[in-house]
Amino acid sequence: MKSNWRDKIRKIDPYVPGEQSKDPDIIKLNANENPYPPSPDVEAVLHQFPVHALRRYPDANSGNLRHALAQHFGVQENQIFMGNGSDDVLALCFQTFFCSEQPILFPDITYSFYPVWCDLFHIPYVRIPLTEEYRINPKDYQRINGGIILPNPNAPTGIGEGLEFVEALLRGNPDSVVIIDEAYIDFGGVSCVPLLDRYENLVIVQTMSKSRSLAGLRVGYAIASPELISALEAVKNSYNSYTMDMVTLDAATASVQDDAYFRKTCQQVIQTRERSVERFQSLGFTVMPSLTNFLLVTHPKRSAKELFENLKAQKIFVRYFNQPRIDNHLRVTIGTDDEMDKLFCALEVLFK
Amino acid sequence: MKSNWRDKIRKIDPYVPGEQSKDPDIIKLNANENPYPPSPDVEAVLHQFPVHALRRYPDANSGNLRHALAQHFGVQENQIFMGNGSDDVLALCFQTFFCSEQPILFPDITYSFYPVWCDLFHIPYVRIPLTEEYRINPKDYQRINGGIILPNPNAPTGIGEGLEFVEALLRGNPDSVVIIDEAYIDFGGVSCVPLLDRYENLVIVQTMSKSRSLAGLRVGYAIASPELISALEAVKNSYNSYTMDMVTLDAATASVQDDAYFRKTCQQVIQTRERSVERFQSLGFTVMPSLTNFLLVTHPKRSAKELFENLKAQKIFVRYFNQPRIDNHLRVTIGTDDEMDKLFCALEVLFK
Repeated sequence: MKSNWRDKIRKIDPYVPGEQSKDPDIIKLNANENPYPPSPDVEAVLHQFPVHALRRYPDANSGNLRHALAQHFGVQENQIFMGNGSDDVLALCFQTFFCSEQPILFPDITYSFYPVWCDLFHIPYVRIPLTEEYRINPKDYQRINGGIILPNPNAPTGIGEGLEFVEALLRGNPDSVVIIDEAYIDFGGVSCVPLLDRYENLVIVQTMSKSRSLAGLRVGYAIASPELISALEAVKNSYNSYTMDMVTLDAATASVQDDAYFRKTCQQVIQTRERSVERFQSLGFTVMPSLTNFLLVTHPKRSAKELFENLKAQKIFVRYFNQPRIDNHLRVTIGTDDEMDKLFCALEVLFK
Repeated sequence: MKSNWRDKIRKIDPYVPGEQSKDPDIIKLNANENPYPPSPDVEAVLHQFPVHALRRYPDANSGNLRHALAQHFGVQENQIFMGNGSDDVLALCFQTFFCSEQPILFPDITYSFYPVWCDLFHIPYVRIPLTEEYRINPKDYQRINGGIILPNPNAPTGIGEGLEFVEALLRGNPDSVVIIDEAYIDFGGVSCVPLLDRYENLVIVQTMSKSRSLAGLRVGYAIASPELISALEAVKNSYNSYTMDMVTLDAATASVQDDAYFRKTCQQVIQTRERSVERFQSLGFTVMPSLTNFLLVTHPKRSAKELFENLKAQKIFVRYFNQPRIDNHLRVTIGTDDEMDKLFCALEVLFK
């Protein structure tokens, strides 16, 4: 039997990440990045970093950063797990918590990486359609499953639900791990951290990429019961013990400790969002109610794809999804007031 | 049938990473770290980093860094794959290249993570014993297999083999991917990069943690044929597109571009190693011939475990492996001349 090394390698459809443009003139409202810089304390960490220390391995347990986050959330340090961006944390959660033969459940319209990880790790899954109003109905998740994951607020709809929603999911699923992906929670949503005391099968995942303006540094984390966190640690330490580098650990710790700046910039994004909702509506757009740093909008008379391309030609980048149910929508990240004004000027001209 | 969320989560024996001591008085010769700081150009990158840029996602393709490495090695950019330390690169290689039902092969005495990844990814494996002289015989690897991985120089023996050794492995295994883990290659070994032109099933993995003094930053990479690199990219982009943060990308690029400093510090480590070999031998130790930044030593009359504990009590940390065939050996990382002098002073007192 003829063998070949090609028979032994993994064939997978390449997921191609979006290219980051380097043109400084671009108004970039397509990646849900924060328009404000990180805390000035992050700058101090980098600019005073004792570079000679880099010859050593970092703290594999991310002690200082976990301590800062535990204090911030009012939980124990052994309830915090750190990863190289929330994608790393989520990928490890999939490998750790979704290990049955039963399909895991997530919405049909949601974060595009969930089915990618299922394919990678051979996890069966079922997509549960959002309601007509693009909302998640907890009753739809009361069926046999190997686990549940969904973002709250959901993306790219932007719609956020309250604590009673998460609690309904948990009450309906005592036999599965339920992961709530709170990537956008800091822009007006209600975190389910208070439910951790009562539900030991709850995992909350957050990121520093959006609300803390640290997408460039790669920091995500999970908050859960000590039992689930130690299961996650065991898998992570069998994969790569040192995911978090020294500079990132210190910079992220400084960010967490500067709560005033964090609250101020989140509030600025929320204010600009509310202003932007009105501007979109006055142009005739339908806007989904958002508790995130983006808006999903659609216009009854104009094709989203055409608007996307027209804006792109003017160096204003927003996001278009060629995907059922939202293929006439645009997802627009909230920028500064100035950036949003330029977007609305461009739209006003297009609509004349 | 009663289900429970605990039935659905992964049970794995936790691998516990070694704790990094913060006591500045310790002479730390236990983790194969470099005694010299990274290139001064790395310091310049950190201390002048435009921190506002961190609000954006980094370049998922690590363009500048791959360009610098491609120039350094005289290969194409599409022959370089970047990861979050070489553990990340190796873990992705295991998932990408070892996907048959046949067992992969590696030495019985080698990097301790290989069997850990096999267990994590359910890859069958066979450990091939080193020869009596603790060397790797390529003939032992001529059997049906799902892939081959081994370090050259090997760890923790420190023994390095030449190009003809790697070529014998490749000629004997045209139907498998052969991964050569060159973590320690820069301390006097011969890299097999020149073989890439002729063997498209060869993957070379290197790290910036040892020879470039960047353990604290987490940078590793693979060099291989464009076909293998794109298979690796596809798996990585299905896992986490943004493993490399902005600061690390720029700092690592600066390190690669400062070749003079790199060569100088590697040469210093080699000189101290050769001096240390003589010192160990004059104390009656048997020393394995090393092409790395560590020495594996054993004494005919003294227990390695006792020496290890005695040194530890004096705040000199070396590495002891409670493992067949090497459980009477110590692995000693090469420090500065001053650190090594202190080690030998302590040993001389112990041997009086």
